[in-house]
Amino acid sequence: MFSHLYIPSFDTTAAQKARLRLDSLAKIPGSLGVLEDLAVRLAGITGRECPAFPQKTVVLFAGDHDIALHNVSASGQEVTEQQVRNFLKGQGTINAFCRTAGAKLVVVDCGMKNDMPYITGLVRRKIVHGVRDFSEGPAMTREEALQCVQLGIDMAYEQAKCGTHLLACGEMGVGNTSPSSAITALFTHAKLEDIVNKGSGIRPDLVKQKCRLIRQGLELNKPDPRDGIDVLAKVGGAEIGAMAGLMLGAASLRIPCVLDGFIAAAAAAIASAIHPGVSTLLVGSHLSKARGHALLMQHLGIPTYFDFGMHLGEGAGAALFFPVIDNAVRILTEMASLKELNIDRCNT
Amino acid sequence: MFSHLYIPSFDTTAAQKARLRLDSLAKIPGSLGVLEDLAVRLAGITGRECPAFPQKTVVLFAGDHDIALHNVSASGQEVTEQQVRNFLKGQGTINAFCRTAGAKLVVVDCGMKNDMPYITGLVRRKIVHGVRDFSEGPAMTREEALQCVQLGIDMAYEQAKCGTHLLACGEMGVGNTSPSSAITALFTHAKLEDIVNKGSGIRPDLVKQKCRLIRQGLELNKPDPRDGIDVLAKVGGAEIGAMAGLMLGAASLRIPCVLDGFIAAAAAAIASAIHPGVSTLLVGSHLSKARGHALLMQHLGIPTYFDFGMHLGEGAGAALFFPVIDNAVRILTEMASLKELNIDRCNT
Repeated sequence: MFSHLYIPSFDTTAAQKARLRLDSLAKIPGSLGVLEDLAVRLAGITGRECPAFPQKTVVLFAGDHDIALHNVSASGQEVTEQQVRNFLKGQGTINAFCRTAGAKLVVVDCGMKNDMPYITGLVRRKIVHGVRDFSEGPAMTREEALQCVQLGIDMAYEQAKCGTHLLACGEMGVGNTSPSSAITALFTHAKLEDIVNKGSGIRPDLVKQKCRLIRQGLELNKPDPRDGIDVLAKVGGAEIGAMAGLMLGAASLRIPCVLDGFIAAAAAAIASAIHPGVSTLLVGSHLSKARGHALLMQHLGIPTYFDFGMHLGEGAGAALFFPVIDNAVRILTEMASLKELNIDRCNT
Repeated sequence: MFSHLYIPSFDTTAAQKARLRLDSLAKIPGSLGVLEDLAVRLAGITGRECPAFPQKTVVLFAGDHDIALHNVSASGQEVTEQQVRNFLKGQGTINAFCRTAGAKLVVVDCGMKNDMPYITGLVRRKIVHGVRDFSEGPAMTREEALQCVQLGIDMAYEQAKCGTHLLACGEMGVGNTSPSSAITALFTHAKLEDIVNKGSGIRPDLVKQKCRLIRQGLELNKPDPRDGIDVLAKVGGAEIGAMAGLMLGAASLRIPCVLDGFIAAAAAAIASAIHPGVSTLLVGSHLSKARGHALLMQHLGIPTYFDFGMHLGEGAGAALFFPVIDNAVRILTEMASLKELNIDRCNT
């Protein structure tokens, strides 16, 4: 399964070179804090002592979830389509953040319920017309799950071919905190009650019902956590699979893929179950307000860098982090060294 | 003292309008977390429901401190000049971060020890040739302190005239954590041992000596915390006074001034002692590793937004935050409303 996809190792040599370079610059060693760790991580992912990311792309996958018909989300399924239209008009949060970062936004229909009439900018790669209610049976067939992941891989390769140096994944899918919670419970062994919260804005009494439905889905489908595709097919979603594929494709190309919040972390857990080495090649961004997010990032061993109490999705946290990534790698290339300035040590 | 300077109030009407607008947008209410609070703060400072900051400027003030001759800083005084040259060549951290943010950097000599030979780009407004060792007497005369603050005010007005919509203050001055620690002790009543840390990279045994020198300076000079200029003159520094002035000037123009780390917070404490209302018109950025920073920000009641463990100065944390500020205000103007999209509530 995806055996044609070679996932390289984190390049410790490039990472060490970047660390030495940072220590030789005209600043107090370590004074840029976690920005220095971030620069080192990006060097190790790309295999380059001084990486640079002039072209950045957010790939946003949209999909629907029949589990939302139980009203465990506070929005109706129609909101997925309305928001996708909004993104294509350039009026979503993710559009604004991409403009600030100078990043491209690519919106992909991988699993929306309806066939949208022709609309400029939408990349049509629909695998399923929404995924089925996993509390009553598998969300997708194994074949559909494989196709979702392959779509994500293809998108990474297509964007790389178009010149992208940095990727991030976004998503839109009413109901997708339910599959993400199921995936979190499965991989982290946390209780559903500690995962599901009001991040989605639903009423407290619905939180209980949501937990019950997810538990029912896990007990009924018995997904095998050693088999990422099995988990994705049984309790996942189309956009979660495509995001996992984007991460795998990016990793195989040594392109850093920046994670967003809870749903992206669930996709990363699927990607990591498919190819365990992938998590060292991914980059965290914000810590979401969704309680499952921290659990998943800890499971994956991927650091996050800031906590704005956001819980939006769309890839917004990742796009917000793009300028920080630029700054982290600019340090490596644009600063004078102590030697150049003829300074022994630099402290203020 | 600066009675010609009118400091307006935080505009609660504009802030409330911005909050209502945020709640009407096509997203879960509050889902952008502290970014929404930041947007509201910027609306209240500028007095505009939808502020925008296309032109941004970091004003970096450089000054020397004879207290550094006690070797309580790990760098020699010559590093102030070397780093200023570095900034003017575009090779400092602050230069890189300004490039990412599309911001202008203005480097001002307000109190460097030496008269630098002519060098392109340096704004020469020297008030003192370094400030005197405050452990042995006042750092400056009252007249010099007043001139430093006036210089900062002038710089805010000059930059506003050049079209700047957003200001940040940076500094370079070997030894300036000592006056900042003295100012912190005076305003927050914290113990010097809880303020001074190894943020400057000095050895643990020197921390003790640094505390002793600062305590001696406070006991000898007896600065009056009710008189900001008295504090600045007796235990401050030229660049600290100029930064305080920049904040006052910016506030009077309803231009948000973004604070950096410890030294900027000490300057904000001086500005706030001069005009108590100014702190509601300033914007925090990162939380520095310097222990006194959190104490001062709490004293001022100004929130910080991220903690990267940085302790660099230069205005780097503020410039790093510029793109976040852009994103916070872009939300207000570039997103569709729920009404436009014909959605009742928006949740995923």
